[in-house]
Amino acid sequence: MSRFADRTGPIRLGMVGGGQDAMIGSIHRIAARLDGHYHLVAGALSSTEDKARASAEAIGLPRDRTYTDYVEMAKREARLKDGIEAVAVVVPNHMHLPVAREFLKRGIHVICDKPLTGTLADAKKLAKAAEQSDAQFILTHNYTGYPLVREAQARVARGDLGDIRVVQVEYAQDWLAEVPAPDNKQAAWRTDPERSGAGGATGDIGTHAFNLLRFVTGLVPTALAADLQAFVPGRALDDNAHVMLRFDGGARGMLWCSQVAAGKENALTLRVFGTKAGLEWRQEESNRLLVTPLGGATEIVTRASAATSDGSRRLTRTPPGHPEGFLEAFANIYGEAAQAIRAARTGASVPEGVTFPTIADGVEGVSFVDACVRSSKRDAAWVKP
Amino acid sequence: MSRFADRTGPIRLGMVGGGQDAMIGSIHRIAARLDGHYHLVAGALSSTEDKARASAEAIGLPRDRTYTDYVEMAKREARLKDGIEAVAVVVPNHMHLPVAREFLKRGIHVICDKPLTGTLADAKKLAKAAEQSDAQFILTHNYTGYPLVREAQARVARGDLGDIRVVQVEYAQDWLAEVPAPDNKQAAWRTDPERSGAGGATGDIGTHAFNLLRFVTGLVPTALAADLQAFVPGRALDDNAHVMLRFDGGARGMLWCSQVAAGKENALTLRVFGTKAGLEWRQEESNRLLVTPLGGATEIVTRASAATSDGSRRLTRTPPGHPEGFLEAFANIYGEAAQAIRAARTGASVPEGVTFPTIADGVEGVSFVDACVRSSKRDAAWVKP
Amino acid sequence: MSRFADRTGPIRLGMVGGGQDAMIGSIHRIAARLDGHYHLVAGALSSTEDKARASAEAIGLPRDRTYTDYVEMAKREARLKDGIEAVAVVVPNHMHLPVAREFLKRGIHVICDKPLTGTLADAKKLAKAAEQSDAQFILTHNYTGYPLVREAQARVARGDLGDIRVVQVEYAQDWLAEVPAPDNKQAAWRTDPERSGAGGATGDIGTHAFNLLRFVTGLVPTALAADLQAFVPGRALDDNAHVMLRFDGGARGMLWCSQVAAGKENALTLRVFGTKAGLEWRQEESNRLLVTPLGGATEIVTRASAATSDGSRRLTRTPPGHPEGFLEAFANIYGEAAQAIRAARTGASVPEGVTFPTIADGVEGVSFVDACVRSSKRDAAWVKP
Amino acid sequence: MSRFADRTGPIRLGMVGGGQDAMIGSIHRIAARLDGHYHLVAGALSSTEDKARASAEAIGLPRDRTYTDYVEMAKREARLKDGIEAVAVVVPNHMHLPVAREFLKRGIHVICDKPLTGTLADAKKLAKAAEQSDAQFILTHNYTGYPLVREAQARVARGDLGDIRVVQVEYAQDWLAEVPAPDNKQAAWRTDPERSGAGGATGDIGTHAFNLLRFVTGLVPTALAADLQAFVPGRALDDNAHVMLRFDGGARGMLWCSQVAAGKENALTLRVFGTKAGLEWRQEESNRLLVTPLGGATEIVTRASAATSDGSRRLTRTPPGHPEGFLEAFANIYGEAAQAIRAARTGASVPEGVTFPTIADGVEGVSFVDACVRSSKRDAAWVKP
Repeated sequence: MSRFADRTGPIRLGMVGGGQDAMIGSIHRIAARLDGHYHLVAGALSSTEDKARASAEAIGLPRDRTYTDYVEMAKREARLKDGIEAVAVVVPNHMHLPVAREFLKRGIHVICDKPLTGTLADAKKLAKAAEQSDAQFILTHNYTGYPLVREAQARVARGDLGDIRVVQVEYAQDWLAEVPAPDNKQAAWRTDPERSGAGGATGDIGTHAFNLLRFVTGLVPTALAADLQAFVPGRALDDNAHVMLRFDGGARGMLWCSQVAAGKENALTLRVFGTKAGLEWRQEESNRLLVTPLGGATEIVTRASAATSDGSRRLTRTPPGHPEGFLEAFANIYGEAAQAIRAARTGASVPEGVTFPTIADGVEGVSFVDACVRSSKRDAAWVKP
Repeated sequence: MSRFADRTGPIRLGMVGGGQDAMIGSIHRIAARLDGHYHLVAGALSSTEDKARASAEAIGLPRDRTYTDYVEMAKREARLKDGIEAVAVVVPNHMHLPVAREFLKRGIHVICDKPLTGTLADAKKLAKAAEQSDAQFILTHNYTGYPLVREAQARVARGDLGDIRVVQVEYAQDWLAEVPAPDNKQAAWRTDPERSGAGGATGDIGTHAFNLLRFVTGLVPTALAADLQAFVPGRALDDNAHVMLRFDGGARGMLWCSQVAAGKENALTLRVFGTKAGLEWRQEESNRLLVTPLGGATEIVTRASAATSDGSRRLTRTPPGHPEGFLEAFANIYGEAAQAIRAARTGASVPEGVTFPTIADGVEGVSFVDACVRSSKRDAAWVKP
Repeated sequence: MSRFADRTGPIRLGMVGGGQDAMIGSIHRIAARLDGHYHLVAGALSSTEDKARASAEAIGLPRDRTYTDYVEMAKREARLKDGIEAVAVVVPNHMHLPVAREFLKRGIHVICDKPLTGTLADAKKLAKAAEQSDAQFILTHNYTGYPLVREAQARVARGDLGDIRVVQVEYAQDWLAEVPAPDNKQAAWRTDPERSGAGGATGDIGTHAFNLLRFVTGLVPTALAADLQAFVPGRALDDNAHVMLRFDGGARGMLWCSQVAAGKENALTLRVFGTKAGLEWRQEESNRLLVTPLGGATEIVTRASAATSDGSRRLTRTPPGHPEGFLEAFANIYGEAAQAIRAARTGASVPEGVTFPTIADGVEGVSFVDACVRSSKRDAAWVKP
Repeated sequence: MSRFADRTGPIRLGMVGGGQDAMIGSIHRIAARLDGHYHLVAGALSSTEDKARASAEAIGLPRDRTYTDYVEMAKREARLKDGIEAVAVVVPNHMHLPVAREFLKRGIHVICDKPLTGTLADAKKLAKAAEQSDAQFILTHNYTGYPLVREAQARVARGDLGDIRVVQVEYAQDWLAEVPAPDNKQAAWRTDPERSGAGGATGDIGTHAFNLLRFVTGLVPTALAADLQAFVPGRALDDNAHVMLRFDGGARGMLWCSQVAAGKENALTLRVFGTKAGLEWRQEESNRLLVTPLGGATEIVTRASAATSDGSRRLTRTPPGHPEGFLEAFANIYGEAAQAIRAARTGASVPEGVTFPTIADGVEGVSFVDACVRSSKRDAAWVKP
């Protein structure tokens, strides 16, 4: 039985990381707020006292729920009668393990940014911690929250595409095409092996692309061959990766991720080709899914339209034609998580149909990065991810 | 001096209308919540007691702040120490005047859905009420909240287009292409002259199109000629309107709105052509603005990109390439309103640069509908809007 | 019985107009050549001797079939044993009547550029001449030669759209947005009432838009209200026109044509909305037709694909995905004409299914321009076209 | 000195292959005809007498210039006073060598379809034959004939993109996604190793993609790793290929070609990313080239527009906005070839700026296929192309 009396009210949420200047923290806060499932009530937004305080004040956190030390936060919040039920972990990758573990071991649900960790060793430790905890672990592979990604998944699952033969997935950006300005904190930690881990672009966006293809197709990769590059002078981590993939059952795929693709903003695209049909989805035009039955005309399936399935429509808020986007998809992950967390209040299991990325997806993602790095070091030899 | 001690905290918000089944109420609630500027603390979500109570409960309103009578709500909230500072009015058009007036006269800010009212007489009364009140009046012509609509406005304002010659604006839907199902409440009141007012499509979406062209171009219409139709058998209000426009200074325009355009969801499109350049913006692809200097290549200006101006970027939350949409634009109106409302707490004026549609835009919109109806009755004669 | 022994060989073609610097002449020549249906063997490419000779030489016309005087050409070619069977008339509008008449009265088929004539009086005279001649009269409203325009027509005809309610058609360009350079011959005659006739943009491109809507929908206009402008200082003819249309049976439409729409190249777009479905076709993306059944997903019907009907596929040369364009569509008109002309060799009638714009379409087009001008002069009053 | 008296008239052209049912033959004929540079006067359209005769008749070839044996044709045409100056070779791949050689050795120019040959050994023999001949050898890698491909090439060449880092090229179709019908001759020879050669999709379309990237970027590949599949049961040649590429200077690339990509027609796409800008061109939307300077807005460069360079505009026939397509691009190769052939009439060299794919490109293409097959057999090991 849970310590929480109020079973239906908003979930009391804490946050570690996400202080001023941190883009992803503000994204998580909006996602948590959008549907009213959460109240952000505590935070260790920075390990620097001044910044922690200023950041907390700026977003209206009460002073007595403002921390600089996430261990102290975990301990105290776990004791408080109205302590947080869940925590959003939005620190650089290398801190995911230590931070998440503190909360998991106290039964506080963890909503963690991706990739799961910087190294595979850490990922496995975190998986163990999650396994030993009663708390939920939600990984914000947010693109799986897009209604039309759900639609794509549903259509593959019900056999519309037949047997999948080829999957092409890519995530291209250009924001790291040059040596970043010294004050660009986003760039700083992402290009630093100490904080980012073994992967650069592979870790930051390759894992998203990989997760997306895994989510939609369900295909299990058996081998990959990766050619990683660091184009920008002085860069220690990959900023471009070409990956060939082989899947159980014979399907093949290609994954390209790049942070030096001049002209690309957040061009995440998935294309799946089966024996009966093909489909295509682009994040930058997220309200349309293209589906073509072999020999037929391409259909533009729009979000929330009558052509979509229940599981897809369930995750929309506005009528078709009124675009939803990145934040709504992110909020869908928070919304799905909320259902699991609320169920946990009464010891119930996660309601049927509720779906979100978990620790297992996280381990897979870090394994993917690890395999890319191993393969690339061996001149793009095939390795098992 | 305001009665509000807390000058920086969230604004206490009430809502009239927006009970279960009401699409627009939930949109307003998300918009209010998204950036954390408001707390919804009271509501008369329905005039039916059971429904009011159930609706309030579903969204977590405290029972003692749940009303069935908006007059009672206005009276009581005005007296409460922590009473609402602002109210969202999301009832059918014919109720905008009586509801808004009750709150305005008690100094409570009004955030009102469009069109302002069902009739021009009502619009003028409401304008008077707004004028006599110290409270702000914000009309949710939400499309002006899109960052790239602001960008378009900024570019026109700074002369990038030269002198405007032609404006083409349209808003096409198909959801009223057939006789609606009896339980479709959205459709029911919108097609009922008693509740919707003089305009059907003209009132519901034509006013949006008109407001959008007014906002972006600043052009003042001197005459319009309108041909209104009700295509669906038995329909009492227009469901399609063709309008020709003449503007002060010689520019010409066309406005088309339709709710019977098979295949269209929420296809709001604005195109402006000047002596130096042209631009185009489509709500359904809201993250891109097309701008073509005469004789040059079309530029795809993306939301939040370096090519956008400060006033546009100020209203974005995510990096370029991560689509924002309808709800974010709606939230921008609420966000701009919040700045005005917070300023009012200390008696300050609205901060410079803060922009939202006001009572004047509302009167203009209803005048537009009124002119369309008058013109159409006279076989599309030119009338002054 | 025809004077032509060879019944299957290429058609001997002459050309009047189309000398050096004349864009449209070269288009007609390519269209005639593309499918091998015609041999260009004679021409009065210019009324200036030097230019006529130089132009003829540049395209390989034999010297003894080079003329400066179209009357002489008509007389002589009619007498020659291997004289031309058809003539392409690509002179400015005001010359269509005198030129075409000379050939028609000698039984030589006429392939004439649009608009039919500069004035309605001329159009009627030419219609009479065509009526009195055994020769075919083909008007190059070339957009009806696009395979997917044929597809659109076929779908409307077989009832896929149900009853048509609304038609939106537009043709926007910007090449006349400024005072043209003095040596721009294309612009010179098109903006000159003496040579172009009563219409500027209405005549040059408005007739195309009008013809396209007539061809696809079959709707018969009963009234139009037009607001014409000449935006460019000193311009004697309209360069922008807004037109509202009413059709027999109750459908309504809007037509916009402009030659001052900064950023538009040849943006001809047709949208048709019926009780059962809507469709959209854009010349600039001519290999796709969008069709949306009410309540269903939009289908992208591609040229030559299995989803197209026989009458559409018959007019394609390359597999789907290999774009065809303007010249192929133009060549389709020449190809359809060739079938009629070849049939005429043996006195047969035009083969079933062969379709091209005729003198009747030409008269309709000039009537449309005439009606626009009349309406605009009366402040956009409704007039019968 | 050439045997041809007429130095400016159309080039007398022969054709080997391209009988009835052969798609590519008719494409070549249109390409040859479109600009009037050639007269098709002789042909061995089939090796079957009846079919050769019927095919020749259908396209109006004189009976005495109709052959069934290409050797006889080469011999006789070389002797004729008005014999062919050039021959289009449009037979299956394995016949390119024997056919082309016969004409080359008699000084008759060869316009040959791609890939150059079925095997690398044959390619080298043909290269030798071409080297030993005075005649021109033109390979119809037709996509390099697109004006905006030329534009892309020009922009890369003048440094607009800076140093190229990444190239993504793909050519996806679905017409071989199933076992073809027995009477599908196009499919029959292309899936038959005897006639097609070592490559299936790699030879048929992979060579186009490879040539396109070579043409635009000028990058020299140093190694490739290829994973080839034959998805359709019973297929002897690859129908899908994933290829990673490394280039001299450090750039990297990916090439994907597929003939089983459900929903794709002729989706040839090239994307190039450099240190200063990126560009993208899609055959299916061939009238637009997207160019994005790093940090700037994407420009839509349209065919024939003022934004294009002379070398690109030189290869267009219609104003911007009037789409040109596949046939026009193909005709551009024929047009460039015509300039070289006409120059050869007088012993002049190919005029400056005239560009077409040559025997060297052909050998490169077959080397590419050969390398793909070798690499794939060694489990996608890196090999030198």
